Amino acid sequence: MAVSRIGIIGLGLIGGSIGRTLLARGHEVVGFDTDSASCLAATSSGFRAVDSIADLCAREPQIVFVAVPLRAMAATFTELRDHVRPGTLLTDVGSVKQPVIDVVASAGLESRFVGAHPMAGTEQAGFAASSAELLLAAPWALTITASTPRDGFLDLLQLICRDLRGRVIPLAPDVHDASVAMTSHLPHVAANGLLNVVAQSPYSTTAFALAAGSFRDGTRVGGTNPRRTEAMIVDNLRWVAPGVRALAADMLALADALEAGADVSAFFDRALDAKQRAQVPHASHRPLDLAALTDVDWRDSVLAIGSGGGQIIAVSDALVATIAQ
Amino acid sequence: MAVSRIGIIGLGLIGGSIGRTLLARGHEVVGFDTDSASCLAATSSGFRAVDSIADLCAREPQIVFVAVPLRAMAATFTELRDHVRPGTLLTDVGSVKQPVIDVVASAGLESRFVGAHPMAGTEQAGFAASSAELLLAAPWALTITASTPRDGFLDLLQLICRDLRGRVIPLAPDVHDASVAMTSHLPHVAANGLLNVVAQSPYSTTAFALAAGSFRDGTRVGGTNPRRTEAMIVDNLRWVAPGVRALAADMLALADALEAGADVSAFFDRALDAKQRAQVPHASHRPLDLAALTDVDWRDSVLAIGSGGGQIIAVSDALVATIAQ
Repeated sequence: MAVSRIGIIGLGLIGGSIGRTLLARGHEVVGFDTDSASCLAATSSGFRAVDSIADLCAREPQIVFVAVPLRAMAATFTELRDHVRPGTLLTDVGSVKQPVIDVVASAGLESRFVGAHPMAGTEQAGFAASSAELLLAAPWALTITASTPRDGFLDLLQLICRDLRGRVIPLAPDVHDASVAMTSHLPHVAANGLLNVVAQSPYSTTAFALAAGSFRDGTRVGGTNPRRTEAMIVDNLRWVAPGVRALAADMLALADALEAGADVSAFFDRALDAKQRAQVPHASHRPLDLAALTDVDWRDSVLAIGSGGGQIIAVSDALVATIAQ
Repeated sequence: MAVSRIGIIGLGLIGGSIGRTLLARGHEVVGFDTDSASCLAATSSGFRAVDSIADLCAREPQIVFVAVPLRAMAATFTELRDHVRPGTLLTDVGSVKQPVIDVVASAGLESRFVGAHPMAGTEQAGFAASSAELLLAAPWALTITASTPRDGFLDLLQLICRDLRGRVIPLAPDVHDASVAMTSHLPHVAANGLLNVVAQSPYSTTAFALAAGSFRDGTRVGGTNPRRTEAMIVDNLRWVAPGVRALAADMLALADALEAGADVSAFFDRALDAKQRAQVPHASHRPLDLAALTDVDWRDSVLAIGSGGGQIIAVSDALVATIAQ
C-alpha cells in the first residue's frame, strides 16, 4: 500500500512527532486536537488541521493515529465509531494496550484496529516538544489479537518500518503490558519514589546539594507530567502493582541482610548478569515471507517473533520481512 | 599556601583524575598504586610514580590524597602512620566518611587529616578512564570534626577551589553519610533492584526488547562495578538500610492504593514538589572572611555553610570565601 493521507488525533509529543516525520516523507497529514493552539502550531509546521474528528474522518485518511492521553481514549473512539469511513485503519500510541483494546471493542471497532506503542519519549510534552527525530529507530510494539485485521497489520508495519524508520515488535496485549510494567512503569515508580524519600528526609537540603549523576539519572523521569505518569500506571496496575511489590521485597531483603551483617554480594552480582542480558545485541538476521503465511497461522507466526525477543527491522514490497533476533 | 608537590595513593578513576588536573595546573604529582600497570600508565601521563608508600612519604608532599577503595583504607592509613612526615596533610576521596575517619583515628592521624568526597564519577573505573575534565565544577564534601586541623582545611579548600576548579560543601561526617545514602547509595540500590526484578520476571525477554530511556537511565549505575557499589553500601549501611526501608514502604503503599482503586495522585504530586526543590539554583553570593574566624568558632561557622545548602565557590589570597546559597 502506498499510504498518502494520514490522520492524527492528538497533536502532542508523539502525535506531533509522527506527523512531522510523515510530512518529511511526503505524506499528507490531517490533524485534530481539542487544543486550538496545538492545531495552529501544527498548521504552521505543514499539518492540515481540521476542526473535529468528523471532519478528519471525512477526508478518508488511510490510517488514523489516535495519539490522545489514555484517559481520553474512550471518548475519542466513541466519536470515531460514528464518523470513521470503511477504508480507514485505526491505530493508537497508548503506553498500555489492553485497556485501549477494551475501549476499541466497546466501540465495535476491533476489526479495523491495530494497537501500537512507539517506545520513545522525553520528559517534555506537547506539540512544541515534538520532532521528526524523536521516533528514529524506535521500537514499536504492535499488538495482535484474534480480531486484528491482517491487511491492516501489514499496512501499519510497512508505514512504521519504511516511513517512520522504526522497528516492530509484535506482541499479545498482555505480554506488552507485563513487559512495559517492568521496563517503563517500574522505573517511573522508582524515580518518583526516590524523589519522595529524599524530600521527606531530615537531610534533604544537604542531600540535594550533594546530588550527582546517579540521582539525576535515577530520578530523570520522576516529578514530571504527574498526571500522564499516574494514568499509565493506574491503567496498568494489574502488572505494575505486583512488579512494585517484587522490587520492594528485593530491597527489603537487602536491608535485612545489611543490618544482619550478612553477605549481600549476590544482590549486586545478579544485577550485573541482568545488565549483560539486557544489552545483548541482535546476533542474526533472517527473512520471513509474510505473504506466504495463511490466514490461520499468521498471528502465531508473527507473535513468535516478538515473544522470542526479535524485531521486524524491514519489509520489502513483496512483503518479505527481515527479522533481527 | 602555594602547594607544589602532591602525593596520590591509588591511581584509579578519581586518583588519576585529581593527578591529571593538578599536573595541568603546574603541580608536581607523585603517585603510588599497588598495580604496576597503573603506575606505568600514570608515568607516561606525567606522574612521578614511586614504588611504595614509604617512598611517596619521603618526597614530603604538602598534601597526600588517599584514593584507594574503601576496603583498602585501613591498610593504607596504617602504613601512612609509619612513614608520613610532619609537614604533610592527609586527605581521602572515599564515598563514605565516618568509617574512614574511624580508620584515621585508629592510626592516630586525625589531627593531620581532612576527609573529602568529590561528587563525580562514571560507570568506568581505573586510570584509563580518568581525565582532567572529570572533576571540573564538581562539588566536594569536606568533613569537619573536633580534630580537623584549621590550616589543613584551608589549604585543601584552596587547592580544590583554585586548582581542581571545584566547589566545597563543608559537612559533619554523619550529615555527609546520611545525605549520600539518599542521593547516591539509594539510587544505586534502586538501579540494581530494577535490573534484578526485570531479569527474574517471566517477561524479561520482551521487557528488555522494549526497554527505552526510562529503563536505561534508571539502571545506568546498576550492574556495574559490583564490588565497588557493594562496599560503599555496606560501609554506609547505618544510613542506607533505613533509606531502603523508607523507599520500599513508600512503594508498597502505592501498590496497596493501586490495588484498592484509591487515589494515588499525591505520590506523583509530591515527587514534582521534590524535583522542584532539588533543582532550585543558588540565588545569592555572599563573602565570608575565613581569616577572621576564631579557633573557637571556625568549625561551627564553616559547617553552617554546608548544612544550610550552601557551597564555597571561591577563596581569595586573603582567605575571603565566596559562598553561594
